[in-house]
Amino acid sequence: MAAKNEKISKVVIKRLPRYRRYLMELKKKGVEKISSKEFSALIGYTASQIRQDLNCFGGFGQQGYGYSVDGLYEEISAILGLDRHYTMVIVGAGSLGQAITKYTHAPSKKGFVVRGVFEVNPELIGTTLDGLPVYDFEELAAFVEKEQIDIGIICVNQDNAQEVADMLCFAGIKGIWNFAPTDIEVPKSVALENVSLTDSLHALAYHMNNVNKHKK
Amino acid sequence: MAAKNEKISKVVIKRLPRYRRYLMELKKKGVEKISSKEFSALIGYTASQIRQDLNCFGGFGQQGYGYSVDGLYEEISAILGLDRHYTMVIVGAGSLGQAITKYTHAPSKKGFVVRGVFEVNPELIGTTLDGLPVYDFEELAAFVEKEQIDIGIICVNQDNAQEVADMLCFAGIKGIWNFAPTDIEVPKSVALENVSLTDSLHALAYHMNNVNKHKK
Repeated sequence: MAAKNEKISKVVIKRLPRYRRYLMELKKKGVEKISSKEFSALIGYTASQIRQDLNCFGGFGQQGYGYSVDGLYEEISAILGLDRHYTMVIVGAGSLGQAITKYTHAPSKKGFVVRGVFEVNPELIGTTLDGLPVYDFEELAAFVEKEQIDIGIICVNQDNAQEVADMLCFAGIKGIWNFAPTDIEVPKSVALENVSLTDSLHALAYHMNNVNKHKK
Repeated sequence: MAAKNEKISKVVIKRLPRYRRYLMELKKKGVEKISSKEFSALIGYTASQIRQDLNCFGGFGQQGYGYSVDGLYEEISAILGLDRHYTMVIVGAGSLGQAITKYTHAPSKKGFVVRGVFEVNPELIGTTLDGLPVYDFEELAAFVEKEQIDIGIICVNQDNAQEVADMLCFAGIKGIWNFAPTDIEVPKSVALENVSLTDSLHALAYHMNNVNKHKK
């Protein structure tokens, strides 16, 4: 499957977690199989789009039967790499870091284990945040290397984000989840996901004002 | 400008907060003007892309001079509707709601004021969360209507998200920032931004595994 995966567009990959979410709901409801037509009515993509997307991974449907909900859920989980565990560190214990620490404690984040929070503020070092130890930022690189941490979550301010990313990459991190409101660069061997909450809020503000203009 | 705005594609709108972020950085550094070429080197879009994007809004550049950093920053801020204030309520005081409450207290969120958190759990009602009052969920609709709240931030679980959205819309909310890991529907007159942190984390997991496959 690896050879096929390489060709999959980012757009399809972005849709996979959404497919998985719907399949989880179907599983919860006890639904065992679903046709691409039924799936289309549920998720809002066209049936042919769904077939095309899932064909990228070899296609799991059987002619005249549809998709096995459980089978497809497991396959997509495996494709996303959710059949294994990931260790994570959070860098920055300011309001953003505290928020993300809270968030990563939610039960739906199983499979993703936060090992510690790293911070420069001496007043916070040695304390705990939601039960997680707050370590000295100076120890970050050694910790990531020794513990073979998978994911670094960047919650520092925009001026320090690139420096933190460089340090994490040098220490052998495999993925970076960046919440700092800035664009960072990483080597090709490191995966990167940016979440700019501020950009999202500002886009919402735009749409609100646009909607209001239309109403007038 | 309203007439022009209506035609602007979602893709361009998504880029505007990013333009604004870079302009803010330039302002901080004391840069007064910038050509589309210089801006291109900085932000990574092509110069013609930048000119095209900004032309959607009437174009602010002067031939042979470039863009006034301050002027463009103010214009984009106004287009995004960031020259005014917004009131917000957070619905749900679980780990997600607590995280978002923490986040919305960060200083960069000026212009967006959280007025309260609404929750069904009787143990939390009447307490405070980061200094914000936690109200009874039963009072949500009346509060939104009376206080003319602009934005509802949905932080409940996926099973209740649509119901909360319906209630907010009926009470006259203007925008919904949805953090529940599910797709919700709102009337056309209401702006909607979905932030699925779980989807983002799962996409990161995919990319990590893909990167690793390539390396083998």
